[in-house]
Amino acid sequence: MNFEDLMKAKVSEADKITDGFLPLSGRFNSELTEAMNYSVKAGGKRLRPVIMMSFYRLFGGSGKVVEPFMAAMEMLHTYSLVHDDLPAIDNDDYRRGVYTTHKKYGEALAVLAGDGLLHQAYETAVKAFDYEADNDNVIKALRIFADKTGVNGMLGGQAADVVNTGKIIDDDLMYYIYEHKTGALIEGSMMIGAALAGADDDCIETVRKTGSLIGLAFQIKDDLLDIYGSEKALGKPVNSDSRNNKKTYVTVNGKDKSQADILRFTEEAVSLLDTVGGNEEERIFLRQLFKYLTSRNS
Amino acid sequence: MNFEDLMKAKVSEADKITDGFLPLSGRFNSELTEAMNYSVKAGGKRLRPVIMMSFYRLFGGSGKVVEPFMAAMEMLHTYSLVHDDLPAIDNDDYRRGVYTTHKKYGEALAVLAGDGLLHQAYETAVKAFDYEADNDNVIKALRIFADKTGVNGMLGGQAADVVNTGKIIDDDLMYYIYEHKTGALIEGSMMIGAALAGADDDCIETVRKTGSLIGLAFQIKDDLLDIYGSEKALGKPVNSDSRNNKKTYVTVNGKDKSQADILRFTEEAVSLLDTVGGNEEERIFLRQLFKYLTSRNS
Repeated sequence: MNFEDLMKAKVSEADKITDGFLPLSGRFNSELTEAMNYSVKAGGKRLRPVIMMSFYRLFGGSGKVVEPFMAAMEMLHTYSLVHDDLPAIDNDDYRRGVYTTHKKYGEALAVLAGDGLLHQAYETAVKAFDYEADNDNVIKALRIFADKTGVNGMLGGQAADVVNTGKIIDDDLMYYIYEHKTGALIEGSMMIGAALAGADDDCIETVRKTGSLIGLAFQIKDDLLDIYGSEKALGKPVNSDSRNNKKTYVTVNGKDKSQADILRFTEEAVSLLDTVGGNEEERIFLRQLFKYLTSRNS
Repeated sequence: MNFEDLMKAKVSEADKITDGFLPLSGRFNSELTEAMNYSVKAGGKRLRPVIMMSFYRLFGGSGKVVEPFMAAMEMLHTYSLVHDDLPAIDNDDYRRGVYTTHKKYGEALAVLAGDGLLHQAYETAVKAFDYEADNDNVIKALRIFADKTGVNGMLGGQAADVVNTGKIIDDDLMYYIYEHKTGALIEGSMMIGAALAGADDDCIETVRKTGSLIGLAFQIKDDLLDIYGSEKALGKPVNSDSRNNKKTYVTVNGKDKSQADILRFTEEAVSLLDTVGGNEEERIFLRQLFKYLTSRNS
């Protein structure tokens, strides 16, 4: 199977797994669960669960215990977008070419649907204990999940970004935002996959570094797409960064160096990956995935 | 020690424990962590952690593993208030006599501070695995925490309440909102205390029923205070329910029956509690606490 078909199959698998952990509608909470389902099903590349599954298999994992964590990570990513789109924050009407949650269901329900997805993410991750697996691996994965998503992870980066919108920021802060707002969930997905497969702490640390490089390359690509991308392919307006006078890696380093650095970081990540061994087939897939992530047009 | 002094000591203990798990300020996330700390430290009765600790001790618990769960429950309760107060939902400027989080820090940061407290609640609960304790009890407590706080617990009730504001609701829906929006966290606190102490499933089910009765009595008392309470003692405006034409237990059943039912539910809860045995000193405290909760003036 070529990469495109393989990726399509993996995305469809991640979709099915995520859907399976979304809440069913009860008699009295149907508006909430409908808005939560809408937010997740409105699309998305499912990169984080696909990456997690692949790292789980790279290190020999073959069970289903990774599935609740895949769904949890996608729900968590989606909640962060739902709240980011709110009128009080980015005030975006469209994402992935369809109405954002608050445009569709109103602001109150969008706040609660985002909350619901964060609740559901953890509730789903905790379900991993129901699977036949080593509890210590699940506990380790839960710790990584908490660390990479909360105030020292994704949310810390998101808050720093929101608080400093429109302000002149220094390079340290720009890197903090990249590393946390974008990088943390990608790192976390890789590390959780490895932890659930029983990888040791040294190995998980190498995986973290790999994720950090890919997260950075991914974000620089995002910034390039915001300037040079196509509105149609992205499903959202371009040039939002320059409208907000936002400092990015691209505004600091220019287009050519940014593109060269994306390649460099990706190659470093591939080299790191080669040091940890593991399943050859998954490593080939991951190499292709890293290149796809950093050369995509949406 | 009389009840008032004992309660004061226990609230102060719960305060100290909760504070110990609040996030420290990092170089780049200080606005977020400051708003989170403000929200928690703005006051509150700390009822849920006090109840949890007491049920833990009632069933023979004597370790520190209950502490992260106490803090987690208080953070979770606080996040729900921060988001409930937002302009898009209740639009309240004051709570407990001080500015609500969005009045103090703006709406964007209030959304993120609420999110942060929900993240931190789970991150803190997961820390319970660091303590010398039976992992199975911690896993059971995590499951209860997830169930009682999420879409089938507190958040489900909160969403049903928000979605139906200003509408005529039937009795089933009114009870659903009571049971979930208010009852679930009280039930959950009791059940988690019991689970961490190693209580068996039958016992935890009796504890759940006790919590359900106390939660209902507590909410009816809240509704009575909204009509007959003092604005000064409550630290927030009264008569908000009647201004919103809200159907409550009190509007349905009248003042006298409501007061009688509060007593009846509290006595039933005390009787249930007597069937599960446990530490005599804690049971005496809990009896007094139940009466205090349902006869308070704020």
